[in-house]
Amino acid sequence: MEFNIAMTDELLATTRAVRKRLDLDRPVPRSVIKDCLELAVQAPTGSNSQTWRWLVVEEADKKQALADLYRRAASDYLAAAGEAAAERGDVQTKRVMGSALYLAEHLQDVPVHLIPCIAGRPPADTPPAMMAGFYGSIFPAVWSFQLALRARGLGSALTTLHLVHEKEAADLLGIPDDVLQVALLPVAYTRGTDFKRAERPPVEDIIHWNQW
Amino acid sequence: MEFNIAMTDELLATTRAVRKRLDLDRPVPRSVIKDCLELAVQAPTGSNSQTWRWLVVEEADKKQALADLYRRAASDYLAAAGEAAAERGDVQTKRVMGSALYLAEHLQDVPVHLIPCIAGRPPADTPPAMMAGFYGSIFPAVWSFQLALRARGLGSALTTLHLVHEKEAADLLGIPDDVLQVALLPVAYTRGTDFKRAERPPVEDIIHWNQW
Repeated sequence: MEFNIAMTDELLATTRAVRKRLDLDRPVPRSVIKDCLELAVQAPTGSNSQTWRWLVVEEADKKQALADLYRRAASDYLAAAGEAAAERGDVQTKRVMGSALYLAEHLQDVPVHLIPCIAGRPPADTPPAMMAGFYGSIFPAVWSFQLALRARGLGSALTTLHLVHEKEAADLLGIPDDVLQVALLPVAYTRGTDFKRAERPPVEDIIHWNQW
Repeated sequence: MEFNIAMTDELLATTRAVRKRLDLDRPVPRSVIKDCLELAVQAPTGSNSQTWRWLVVEEADKKQALADLYRRAASDYLAAAGEAAAERGDVQTKRVMGSALYLAEHLQDVPVHLIPCIAGRPPADTPPAMMAGFYGSIFPAVWSFQLALRARGLGSALTTLHLVHEKEAADLLGIPDDVLQVALLPVAYTRGTDFKRAERPPVEDIIHWNQW
């Protein structure tokens, strides 16, 4: 198959973190989640480990409990980060933080929560700088899931703030101790699909050719 | 823009880790790398941090030094992992390890090495299970880069084995101490573009609905 470069570029450039424009009223069929996860697990993994596992939460009481737990971790942090961004004149980040606060308030109402997991928890004394192979074997798949959603008119956002209460979330959902949660993604149809490219500084400023 | 779902699915499902089919003879123009990095940095980052930095290595002596360093980390590991896979009858992983060994032998001849970095090294006492937000802010962009390559007839592979010698690579390339390397991707045009979907177990086996 020949790829249409303009279309693939549009997909990669306009798959945003969607929070305020998640449609809280439109149900998400399981078949859509399954189709997008089938595409997700086509991504490569280190040493072909394929240790990804996917927890999909649709039940209202569990989403409510996850949202409560998320807000406990997130609200103070997001408000402070928003204020700090405003003080240094970073309008884009201030807007992102406002959007993230909106999500925290409405998380229980999002049709689906996806919690990507890894079967096999890393030893607690692993240096953080040696975790690239581990997380590099799950986040490409997570991003593929988000891109597959985008092509189908849905949106999501990669959040990790609930992980400070990972054990509580595990108890709520029956996740075994040796399984590591890596994120929580709200998933919904989007209100409209006309998402734009993000404003970014010139990429040349952050590329180093041959030498830092 | 309306997305062609069949085409986006094909992109997500056939962007493989390419090693044996990297074209070692065809130069890769800087403009292609730059275009793909422009798409990469459209990905979201946690708290809009955008701390990604990109080191692109084209010079022969530096690629040779990186390849030597990579082989020192990789060869024994890959050979052992291949034998272990063969012993348990895991043909797919055995093939992956053979391909990875091929890459290790030819790494210096690949036209471009890309080393994605994060400005801001995490504190050494950060628990490995709390690194999701950190790595989740770079690997979606790395995967977007790989997908953008695929649409243009190029391929790559996400490798992390050189990171056990991260400091040596940093000294070679002048990377400051507070900048963290997260991977090394060989980048080249591919010999042919007819990549197939990977064989995967049924996705239902690794989805948990509402409860583990």
